[in-house]
Amino acid sequence: MFENMDMLWAGISIVISIIAFGIAFYFYKWILKQPTANEKLKSVGQLIRENSFKFLKKEYSILATFVIIVSIIIILVFPTPLWSESASFANNFVMAIAYIFGSFFSALAGWIGISVATIANVKTATLAKKDIKDSFVCGFRGGAVMGMAVVGTSLLGAALLYIITGNPDTVLAFSFGASSLALFAKAGGGIFTKTADIAADLTGKVELGIPEDDPRNPAVIADNVGDNVGDVAGMGADLFDSNIAAIAATIVIAIPLGQVAILFAFASLGLLASIIGVLCSRIGKNGTPSKALNNGTYLTCSLFAIFTFIATYLCNFEMRIWGASIIGMIVGVIIGITSDFFTGDNKKPVKKVAESCQKGPAFTVLSGFAYGLLSALPALLGIGIAALASYKLCEPLNLIYNTTGYELLGISMSAIGMLSIVGMIVSNDAYGPIVDNARGLAEMGDLGEDVIKVADELDAAGNTTKAITKGFAIAAAGLTVISLLAAFMQVVESKTGVQTGFDIMNPTVFFGALVGVAIPAVFSALLIFGVNKNSQILVEEIHNQFKKDPGIKEGTSSPDYGRCIVLATRGAMRELLPASLVAIFSTLAVGFVGGVEAIGGYLTGNILSGLLLAMLMSNAGGLWDNAKKYIEAGNFGGKGSEAHKAAVIGDTIGDPFKDTAGPSINTQITVVSLVSSLSAELFLLHSIF
Amino acid sequence: MFENMDMLWAGISIVISIIAFGIAFYFYKWILKQPTANEKLKSVGQLIRENSFKFLKKEYSILATFVIIVSIIIILVFPTPLWSESASFANNFVMAIAYIFGSFFSALAGWIGISVATIANVKTATLAKKDIKDSFVCGFRGGAVMGMAVVGTSLLGAALLYIITGNPDTVLAFSFGASSLALFAKAGGGIFTKTADIAADLTGKVELGIPEDDPRNPAVIADNVGDNVGDVAGMGADLFDSNIAAIAATIVIAIPLGQVAILFAFASLGLLASIIGVLCSRIGKNGTPSKALNNGTYLTCSLFAIFTFIATYLCNFEMRIWGASIIGMIVGVIIGITSDFFTGDNKKPVKKVAESCQKGPAFTVLSGFAYGLLSALPALLGIGIAALASYKLCEPLNLIYNTTGYELLGISMSAIGMLSIVGMIVSNDAYGPIVDNARGLAEMGDLGEDVIKVADELDAAGNTTKAITKGFAIAAAGLTVISLLAAFMQVVESKTGVQTGFDIMNPTVFFGALVGVAIPAVFSALLIFGVNKNSQILVEEIHNQFKKDPGIKEGTSSPDYGRCIVLATRGAMRELLPASLVAIFSTLAVGFVGGVEAIGGYLTGNILSGLLLAMLMSNAGGLWDNAKKYIEAGNFGGKGSEAHKAAVIGDTIGDPFKDTAGPSINTQITVVSLVSSLSAELFLLHSIF
Repeated sequence: MFENMDMLWAGISIVISIIAFGIAFYFYKWILKQPTANEKLKSVGQLIRENSFKFLKKEYSILATFVIIVSIIIILVFPTPLWSESASFANNFVMAIAYIFGSFFSALAGWIGISVATIANVKTATLAKKDIKDSFVCGFRGGAVMGMAVVGTSLLGAALLYIITGNPDTVLAFSFGASSLALFAKAGGGIFTKTADIAADLTGKVELGIPEDDPRNPAVIADNVGDNVGDVAGMGADLFDSNIAAIAATIVIAIPLGQVAILFAFASLGLLASIIGVLCSRIGKNGTPSKALNNGTYLTCSLFAIFTFIATYLCNFEMRIWGASIIGMIVGVIIGITSDFFTGDNKKPVKKVAESCQKGPAFTVLSGFAYGLLSALPALLGIGIAALASYKLCEPLNLIYNTTGYELLGISMSAIGMLSIVGMIVSNDAYGPIVDNARGLAEMGDLGEDVIKVADELDAAGNTTKAITKGFAIAAAGLTVISLLAAFMQVVESKTGVQTGFDIMNPTVFFGALVGVAIPAVFSALLIFGVNKNSQILVEEIHNQFKKDPGIKEGTSSPDYGRCIVLATRGAMRELLPASLVAIFSTLAVGFVGGVEAIGGYLTGNILSGLLLAMLMSNAGGLWDNAKKYIEAGNFGGKGSEAHKAAVIGDTIGDPFKDTAGPSINTQITVVSLVSSLSAELFLLHSIF
Repeated sequence: MFENMDMLWAGISIVISIIAFGIAFYFYKWILKQPTANEKLKSVGQLIRENSFKFLKKEYSILATFVIIVSIIIILVFPTPLWSESASFANNFVMAIAYIFGSFFSALAGWIGISVATIANVKTATLAKKDIKDSFVCGFRGGAVMGMAVVGTSLLGAALLYIITGNPDTVLAFSFGASSLALFAKAGGGIFTKTADIAADLTGKVELGIPEDDPRNPAVIADNVGDNVGDVAGMGADLFDSNIAAIAATIVIAIPLGQVAILFAFASLGLLASIIGVLCSRIGKNGTPSKALNNGTYLTCSLFAIFTFIATYLCNFEMRIWGASIIGMIVGVIIGITSDFFTGDNKKPVKKVAESCQKGPAFTVLSGFAYGLLSALPALLGIGIAALASYKLCEPLNLIYNTTGYELLGISMSAIGMLSIVGMIVSNDAYGPIVDNARGLAEMGDLGEDVIKVADELDAAGNTTKAITKGFAIAAAGLTVISLLAAFMQVVESKTGVQTGFDIMNPTVFFGALVGVAIPAVFSALLIFGVNKNSQILVEEIHNQFKKDPGIKEGTSSPDYGRCIVLATRGAMRELLPASLVAIFSTLAVGFVGGVEAIGGYLTGNILSGLLLAMLMSNAGGLWDNAKKYIEAGNFGGKGSEAHKAAVIGDTIGDPFKDTAGPSINTQITVVSLVSSLSAELFLLHSIF
């Protein structure tokens, strides 16, 4: 019976994925039908769109080379090296195909997201002339296309692979393809967007005192392109990666237990709930954009709980597993709310940091950094509680079925529960850069002050949700990598036939942990260096443009936007590989030196420090950003005051923290976990110790 | 035979400790005999001395209350709760005495250090008029008194307790007393010193543009007092704590193996080597202060290696254990050298950060932070290699003696080896604030430009050594806490009779690890908040003084130094407890909720993130400090340039990083480990899960 159930729910997953694509296509058509205000707006919008695609093409062409190289390596050594006795060429070949498939889907989701976002921004700006409600719907639907594409492709891919191969290794390879591409997309897009943002701010706001998005600024188009390639494609890739990794880990754990059906049931019902949530998100009477976004999220959560409860009841699934999923979902929401506390602009931390800006930039940085450190506690505690509670809740099932593994299934289903609402989360998140762009377009397209005000309101809502989304994304990645760690153990056990564990008192495990702790730090450092270096190059270019043609500053001649974009792209491409490769190669080095025990410790260290640094950087960055906005709203002297100058410095420091390094760490820990699981057999065969 | 060997070497330890006290007393007398240049110098020196003692008295009186409360708790519950069947009042009473003894010794070492440092600073300034060589010897001997006092008291205390009680629990309690006092001393002194330093810099250097140590600055005396209470007493307490904790952990592990003799042999021979090293440290022909300090360290290392080799040979100790110690010593020196690479003023990172200062403070902070993140890798790798290598080296001894535990003895003896040269390290380290003070005194005592130049040269050498010392201190604490983790396991095993381990895949262990990771972050955040808040209060006070009496700025009337010191002291006292208590109470909370398994994970998480954050903050802070000095030396525009302003902001951010939070983390992780070992039985009896 289980066998049929599996296939039934995998089939339903495919159907619901296709419905999600249908909704996305409907939204896309709807957005296309909306009007465009004027020719100038159209041409600026076109400029952003073209250059976003130019960046994406450049990035994908580099990544294609990487994918080809890795595919060849996979054919040679994964899951079993061809030189090993038990090797099968066909097996390895299927793995490579699954890997390519994963990379392609991840790239596709990013491409779809950008395609729609770079039309929706223009339409949203235009609709803002008419009404905030329509404008909101347009921005949100633009984001929802990305949301539907991300969850649809990940679920479709996993379900298809499971039906065709039934082999957990191929799903891991699919996930690895998606994650490694996501890592590059996040790192590359993150470096690009912050390079442009910092350079635009320093030369425009700080030096010239002109407003954000002023067309006199040579980096202004690059900045808007960055919102798309960094935030839409990058953040989408991040959650795509967590989502597919959680599914892959659960499949690995669920297959021996014959519990794959519940995974596909919950994942597909989560997508269904998100679809309904997305369709219902609009501003009601007396409503605000923030309320509309939050209500959509809460609706999705409630529907998920109800749907899965009914499915559990009807299909005779275990109620304890349902409970584990709900724990994950609730903890995810709570962690999102605590992130909001640390970064929300009406909360104490932001006000305190804004206040300390009056005493100079050193205090701005110190207080924001200290709050960032504090903010790690609730998230780490939440992840710990979710993992512990879901484990303990599902442990008794082992007795009933006289087996082991249900406790680990509990953890991984908790991650699935947390990620159930990911369709809604990505929609909320991609909404942010679209309305941010719309604001810029309203300014550059001369749509007038009223429109800018509406766009500002939409943008503010986007910023608040962004904080919640980021906390959520980190928590989801945390729980996912814990289940990936469990999956790694499962893989090792299935290959060796021996039950393993990773005892901290084993010095090889501890050695691995010490190295693992350092990797997210090194990874972040390399990304920060990348942003640093590139934005300095870009600032120089802008200064040169100003020097060559003084008319640019006066607004009488047009700056060379294209040159800035080329420089930012080139820099991002140069810097995106080293950080990512360091993470992958250090994993292989630890594995080949210390074997699976060292890798167990390494993954643990990596997860622990990765979560700490990700929370620290994301929240400190968000906090500085909002402290600056709080001062700009007229507090502590407002714009142009000494406090504001200090706040701008804090914000600039926070830029690569929150949009480059911080969110990339999620993906880094997932990729490292997947590399480990895939290489488990290799490490068993060839490690030195 | 082992029994007698133990007592023999414990006895030798006592003898060598007493010799160390003799040397310290001789140095003290020698320093007293040196001349004092003039009355003004004498009176300023007196002011610093009096106020340092005032701070210390205030601090110790608060800590005395804490010690009394903890003693009562110990009598009630440690090692065995009085309400338990196997309880013994006498046992608990001895524990409390050992604890008080440890606190007292730690306080005593700090007191001795300050007593001598606040005389040596005046004498060093005076001798600088005559000759750099004599001046160096005076500064160094002042530091060496602290070095000898620290190592002498810790070794004497441990040896006496071992001889009298023979019980590892009492040595743990002694160590806990020393460590908890060190934690408060480090936190309190660290907050005080940086409060004064930041306030003095911001109002003096930045606002008024007057030089450092200018007597017109109301916070100048507080700043110099801070050097003593923060750097002499605080840093001494830090290494005191690591040293005694390493000895305690080794005793716990060595007693069941009958290998206590080798511990006392190596510890006492390390002290002997340090005594000789200290006596030989002077500037030779064509020598520099830096060379003199380094040569002393290398001499001490070589002597330690030779002495212990001979002892191992003569006493038939195991050569493998000797090897483990030497590995620890070598790795310690290497980590110190890598810290020097990241913070040394003639190395690439400092130059790069100084260069990026030209682009504004945001880049200063970002590049320094990124280098700080990178700097964690070599240290973590080094600690991992030392632990792994010493474990593997000593593991075969288990076969020979048909037992288990030698592998853990290997790790703890590696920590002892690393700490063997601690007498020399503390001497080098306390030399820094003494010559820093001497520089200030030369300025305030009108000793002239030539003297200031000599003092500057002595000070520069102090800064370089400081970086090495800090890297070393963190590494030593890292290895020590790993052996404390082993000791904790040993304690649990001895109480339960069951061999335990901490499997990461156990969700209780993982839960503990997630919480453990957050604690050093929260601890650091609270300390940074403390410094932030207090220095803002102090800045306000200084502004008030300037406003009330304009003559202060012109130098016609004297500022109210005392009021600044009172404010800084009051602030430090208010902020020192919360951070420290959070660390202690969260340990108890985790233990009572999750039991020993959760604590195993908690300690691991704590160690891992503690080491990461300690390296990040210490090295980033040191880097910013030296980048500022590099610019002040005339590079990138020199003093007063935009680059210099950016560098000053970086330096201010780095102040609480490198002198408050960073080095306190070492002590925090040690204290938490000791609390865990002491409470093991309690957790076994009373945990919820």
